[in-house]
Amino acid sequence: MADTRRIRLTVAYDGTAYAGYQRQAGHRSVQQALEDALGKLSGVPRVVIHGASRTDAGVHALGQVVHFDTSGRIPAEKYGFALNTLLPGDVRVMASCEVSPDFHARFSATGKTYRYLVDNGRHFCPLRRLTHAHVPIPLDLAAMRGEAQTVVGRHDFRAFAAAGSVAKTTVRTIHRVRLEQEGACFCLYVHGNAFLYNMVRILAGTLIDVGRGNAAPGAIARALETGDRLALGVTAPAQGLTLMAVYYDDDERAQMYFD
Amino acid sequence: MADTRRIRLTVAYDGTAYAGYQRQAGHRSVQQALEDALGKLSGVPRVVIHGASRTDAGVHALGQVVHFDTSGRIPAEKYGFALNTLLPGDVRVMASCEVSPDFHARFSATGKTYRYLVDNGRHFCPLRRLTHAHVPIPLDLAAMRGEAQTVVGRHDFRAFAAAGSVAKTTVRTIHRVRLEQEGACFCLYVHGNAFLYNMVRILAGTLIDVGRGNAAPGAIARALETGDRLALGVTAPAQGLTLMAVYYDDDERAQMYFD
Repeated sequence: MADTRRIRLTVAYDGTAYAGYQRQAGHRSVQQALEDALGKLSGVPRVVIHGASRTDAGVHALGQVVHFDTSGRIPAEKYGFALNTLLPGDVRVMASCEVSPDFHARFSATGKTYRYLVDNGRHFCPLRRLTHAHVPIPLDLAAMRGEAQTVVGRHDFRAFAAAGSVAKTTVRTIHRVRLEQEGACFCLYVHGNAFLYNMVRILAGTLIDVGRGNAAPGAIARALETGDRLALGVTAPAQGLTLMAVYYDDDERAQMYFD
Repeated sequence: MADTRRIRLTVAYDGTAYAGYQRQAGHRSVQQALEDALGKLSGVPRVVIHGASRTDAGVHALGQVVHFDTSGRIPAEKYGFALNTLLPGDVRVMASCEVSPDFHARFSATGKTYRYLVDNGRHFCPLRRLTHAHVPIPLDLAAMRGEAQTVVGRHDFRAFAAAGSVAKTTVRTIHRVRLEQEGACFCLYVHGNAFLYNMVRILAGTLIDVGRGNAAPGAIARALETGDRLALGVTAPAQGLTLMAVYYDDDERAQMYFD
């Protein structure tokens, strides 16, 4: 139809109650929540929504990006207010706009930023339990920072590929890594062109191992060289991970998490 | 018994799933969760725990203080680790120590600090929905700060007393108030010698009204003079409130939220 438009949404969610972003039979997914709300709004029984990142069960997002096509007449910038009246409180459309018909949330993406949060207090703060991993053993910030920088650049990350990964290539480019200590917490930001399944959680798990002295510094460099998954730490828990942003050009906004 | 000790616990909780701190028949309470865990640990069917503050349904705590008496032999500083294995994840003992037999969590308290959080973004961020109130209309920080300072000092806060309040006196002293803007959020800290029921939430509601232009600056000064509850704003939602700390002397730690 001549009057079909493509709409881009920026979506935030608390992943706690979801089996992940992607629709799965018999499970609650963020995609289904969005498609259900859009179906009600547009009166069309099934609207297909395409997401940039298939975040896992328990993983959160502040800047997931999705797109869909519609022949409806709602102004593009009104989709946030309209959909949020129909969505559960743990999923929110934060922004919306019309994009060109060749924009694709997943295939047009040129980069993403993820955040991983760790509560390093002796006891796991209840207000952090759904958004942080808990490591009660003191962590060495300097050792973790040094180790984190070794992922920056273009590398074959096959050692970081979770079992069962079906990626065609395991070469990825990490543009920036930043690790901060804020009170009892550690906050890791990673900006890359793309990420293998579980890659950030394996990176976080390895940094935690180095920070607590369970792994020697240099573990990541060795894993990048040998491709050995066993040189790295365990996959850190899902609830510490948040998809912060998806980028579609050499966006200067990507810098904001790294200043 | 000669070997009875009094133990003080610092307790943090996510109040979302609780009908409040205080035990109530037919409802989940934080007190009951603590007493159940302590009963299991000590093998005594009912241990009575005394809390400093009877926080309301949905209100959180990072620094609630409670005490109980025990003839058990667990070292005082081990109660955190022991109780946390028995408590649900939304209640955590953060610290424990032995105190003198004349210490009382509620009656010995000389001051408390509360925090109130507001998400001022256009759409309510899902990761803030259980810990913040949402005000989508832009707030005027300078107007709110000026208004907030008028509560500092010793005043008759009867205008702030919620209906049904049974306090003997409504005179309270507010030592410090601080309001900060952090990104899309506003963060209010209030340190006082004691608080009337709902007092901080009525203060937050009034500051929000002034910040959005629904009430003229000076509302609090007029309410303090006249005692008129209607001069103030509505009671702000419970989930934005967190009990940060309870003090038992002229504690310098009280300054930490106001630097």
